[in-house]
Amino acid sequence: MYSVVFNPILEESLNLVGTFAFAESGALLAVRKNYDIVGMAVLSVITAIGGGVIRDLIIGAVPPVAFTDASYLWIALFVTGLTFFAHSLINRLNAAVLVFDAAGLATFCISGATKALVYGLSPLPAIALGTLTAVGGGIMRDVLAQDRPTVLRAGSELYALPAALGATIAVIIPHFPINGPLSVGLTAVFVFALRLLALRYGWKGPRPWRTNNGH
Amino acid sequence: MYSVVFNPILEESLNLVGTFAFAESGALLAVRKNYDIVGMAVLSVITAIGGGVIRDLIIGAVPPVAFTDASYLWIALFVTGLTFFAHSLINRLNAAVLVFDAAGLATFCISGATKALVYGLSPLPAIALGTLTAVGGGIMRDVLAQDRPTVLRAGSELYALPAALGATIAVIIPHFPINGPLSVGLTAVFVFALRLLALRYGWKGPRPWRTNNGH
Amino acid sequence: MYSVVFNPILEESLNLVGTFAFAESGALLAVRKNYDIVGMAVLSVITAIGGGVIRDLIIGAVPPVAFTDASYLWIALFVTGLTFFAHSLINRLNAAVLVFDAAGLATFCISGATKALVYGLSPLPAIALGTLTAVGGGIMRDVLAQDRPTVLRAGSELYALPAALGATIAVIIPHFPINGPLSVGLTAVFVFALRLLALRYGWKGPRPWRTNNGH
Repeated sequence: MYSVVFNPILEESLNLVGTFAFAESGALLAVRKNYDIVGMAVLSVITAIGGGVIRDLIIGAVPPVAFTDASYLWIALFVTGLTFFAHSLINRLNAAVLVFDAAGLATFCISGATKALVYGLSPLPAIALGTLTAVGGGIMRDVLAQDRPTVLRAGSELYALPAALGATIAVIIPHFPINGPLSVGLTAVFVFALRLLALRYGWKGPRPWRTNNGH
Repeated sequence: MYSVVFNPILEESLNLVGTFAFAESGALLAVRKNYDIVGMAVLSVITAIGGGVIRDLIIGAVPPVAFTDASYLWIALFVTGLTFFAHSLINRLNAAVLVFDAAGLATFCISGATKALVYGLSPLPAIALGTLTAVGGGIMRDVLAQDRPTVLRAGSELYALPAALGATIAVIIPHFPINGPLSVGLTAVFVFALRLLALRYGWKGPRPWRTNNGH
Repeated sequence: MYSVVFNPILEESLNLVGTFAFAESGALLAVRKNYDIVGMAVLSVITAIGGGVIRDLIIGAVPPVAFTDASYLWIALFVTGLTFFAHSLINRLNAAVLVFDAAGLATFCISGATKALVYGLSPLPAIALGTLTAVGGGIMRDVLAQDRPTVLRAGSELYALPAALGATIAVIIPHFPINGPLSVGLTAVFVFALRLLALRYGWKGPRPWRTNNGH
């Protein structure tokens, strides 16, 4: 059934937009960290393809698409070059990293969950893999750059939740006649907006009561 | 030969116990780090399935069992929910993380080594993979939570050694008539006890003489 | 075409030299960090096989060669034992880590790119995978040991660039009659020398102008 509704062009578009956005988030973080152009390229490439490579290894789609379709690497290298020269146009690097990261999150949670369904995973694993695809590249970026991972910051705004919601919607909509590019696009916009609103208004998840005896 | 003595129910039981234990260690560390419930779920899931996913990718069992059998993810999510409400019953979070971590270590070293043998690996690689399965989830947990990895702390108690011993025993016992659930259970108890005793009595591995000129 | 020019003995030799070198870099870093012998073995093994395991997972060569040919693990364990007793002969641990790391970098970028071609990847992905193979083990080593990754240090000397150049040459030479052990050996020497010269003379990549408003 999923193979019927699966739209390869839509899927590819999502992946390319997410790759661009994550590549930019990696390149800008590298600028903020004062890396040279090679460090920028490394961080940009790993952020851009990291989540998708994990997804493809787990579902058994090897070599991962980032290594069979050279577009992904070219995008990341192009973004690196562009950012090298044009980053000074961006006044607030931190904010820009977060906005591009949100765009990557929004597209990869959907493409990850959908590809997982195509490869026969059941709903909960597909949602988990969609979420992992979305947060994986950013986790690698933050670990390599020795930043606290965005997904796991005490007191941070919603991050994995928008991705998990997007993946859940992506798993549900093929069961309804609304499936199509429009629904998928709206889902991506919803995830992107939810993440940015959470950042803007400081929306946080519920937290267990603090204990005094831990640590 | 290994396929004859292999006991899938036993294997599954080990994996599920280990998944529960590692999920709890991740959820409790998240509480100690003051993450919200989404961060708890992310850390719990990654700790619980991380080692097994690496194992399955390496032996070519894709998709990894954590993505074909949804029980693993449900266990981690259930543990997250339980811990969210009940963590205040646990007075000493640090100690609890270590105890649950030891239980995961004890079960995954055996299941990892056994599964490696089933997939045709020779003894030393099987022992290495069993050890990696046991320490992998905890490494990911500690790296993501920006803790010093338990497996690599200067002055820390035995950690990888009990796992490597457990994996070694798991590789040896199929050659003897003692193979069976009892032997496997005793091996797990041995690894668990060895790790806890090492923590209690400060047992450490031999260390090269300190040099004064490094760093 | 690549299958014709591919030389399995040469490939194996490169891998074994790189494994030895990276194992030594991991073991020496463990000494510098004052780990015990088990921590030395863990860091040595992961540094030695990490890059090659990522390479093999991505191209679909599973189980990775480090788990089908036990030599790789034996080398890392032998290096650990040797280093445990003999490290005090090495006066300057930091420098020694860097020299062995450079040797691993020089051999793995070539073996990674060549194996990628053999498995059908096109040039740019093969270069990316060669570079990733070369830097992967060192990244894991540095992340686990909580050092800043060598590949991504603000103000650091050329690291990924020599590896990327070596991978590029490895992708180009099969198209020319100069292909053979001598060319491959010279490429490795070139990468090794370029990295050491960069360290010696502080060669760095170009850096984007520093901004005052980021962070």
